[in-house]
Amino acid sequence: MHIDVLTLFPEMISGVFNSSILKKAQDKNKFSYNLVNFREYADNKHKKVDDYPYGGGAGMVLTPQPVFDAVEAVTKDKAKKPRIILMCPQGEPYNQKKAEELAQEEHLMFICGHYEGYDERIRENLVTDEISIGDYVLTGGELGAMVVIDSVVRLLPDVLGNKESAPEDSFSSGLLEHPHYTRPADFRGMKVPDVLLSGDHAKIEAWRKRESLKRTYERRRELLDQQTLLEDEQEILNQIKK
Amino acid sequence: MHIDVLTLFPEMISGVFNSSILKKAQDKNKFSYNLVNFREYADNKHKKVDDYPYGGGAGMVLTPQPVFDAVEAVTKDKAKKPRIILMCPQGEPYNQKKAEELAQEEHLMFICGHYEGYDERIRENLVTDEISIGDYVLTGGELGAMVVIDSVVRLLPDVLGNKESAPEDSFSSGLLEHPHYTRPADFRGMKVPDVLLSGDHAKIEAWRKRESLKRTYERRRELLDQQTLLEDEQEILNQIKK
Repeated sequence: MHIDVLTLFPEMISGVFNSSILKKAQDKNKFSYNLVNFREYADNKHKKVDDYPYGGGAGMVLTPQPVFDAVEAVTKDKAKKPRIILMCPQGEPYNQKKAEELAQEEHLMFICGHYEGYDERIRENLVTDEISIGDYVLTGGELGAMVVIDSVVRLLPDVLGNKESAPEDSFSSGLLEHPHYTRPADFRGMKVPDVLLSGDHAKIEAWRKRESLKRTYERRRELLDQQTLLEDEQEILNQIKK
Repeated sequence: MHIDVLTLFPEMISGVFNSSILKKAQDKNKFSYNLVNFREYADNKHKKVDDYPYGGGAGMVLTPQPVFDAVEAVTKDKAKKPRIILMCPQGEPYNQKKAEELAQEEHLMFICGHYEGYDERIRENLVTDEISIGDYVLTGGELGAMVVIDSVVRLLPDVLGNKESAPEDSFSSGLLEHPHYTRPADFRGMKVPDVLLSGDHAKIEAWRKRESLKRTYERRRELLDQQTLLEDEQEILNQIKK
């Protein structure tokens, strides 16, 4: 996979690309990336990329010219057009299913605005996807792009080792994960539940399933509505509700 | 405001703190930050911070000792306990209201796990808040912490200048923002709507309100259910539905 990020603040995100799993994935040749400062494509003397909004109002708006020209320069030798993703609060809410979809692509491009809004013509005539990572306001699209990239790259084949992988990740199963415990069994008087020390795998699995359902019910009831529960799961849930 | 971030990957996020609005906010003394690598607090020879889960299963689990000791070391001279926020997929879904709440605090502390789950005793006995930035799986809590920090710091008084501020930000009003346009009025044949060039402010306001309602209706219908619309807004919405 190749990933281009169009941003006015490349120094903001290069540290993220060069740490941890994203670094390891590059070392294994699972993906490559390119940071493009689209200010360099501004065709005016002062390399200005924003201007006042037509119709008045606060804030500045990114002009279409540098963004269109940067996208064209980056894609001109490519046989296939990449997915061009605009990070913005008006976009489609991001979720694990979308991460799995994007992980199938060969080439992703992210456009990150900063402070400003985007000129609508970028939205209408240039991008293939608009994504929002959540219902909160950020100063720019960079952190959102990094969130998407991190969640996508970890899904690429052979990126996660056994140490990092967790097949029962929250959201992959549709339920929140059960609690985890590790050494020591007694930490300052706080103890690990006996069942986890019992060595009885059937009991441990039953405890985990129950805790996972309980936590989802207590914290994110709406996730259960989107699920088709197995008969035994439904029975456990009925007990929890009592 | 002071912000502590407990992380195993400080180099991953220092670039974010040193760019753009977060940098400007520090230059204006609006907040300070401290990155704490809690591996330094591990009391074993190899500075190990994780171990196998009790009861078996894939993945590693962060042990309680280094995290408890790091939090205690950082807070020991403080008169008031900070908000201690665990970034995790099982947490409370983050939104703009929570950002506004956190922006009232004097001291925030973020605990970021990486790959692993957290030992449940951290969750139960150490933290004041558990936050999830969205329903997707990330390799660690660092990006989530930066998302929360960015959204909180931009709300601190005098952090955003007029250039960056946008009173009609998406989510602050409960609706998605209307489209923006800036120069040129004609870009490669793609034109700005005439109304925005008309100079008629009443018409422009009406257009913007209609577009904001329309976009919210088309993209995020559920946001309208959480809103109390004014009478004229309800009427516009009824027209859009037709």
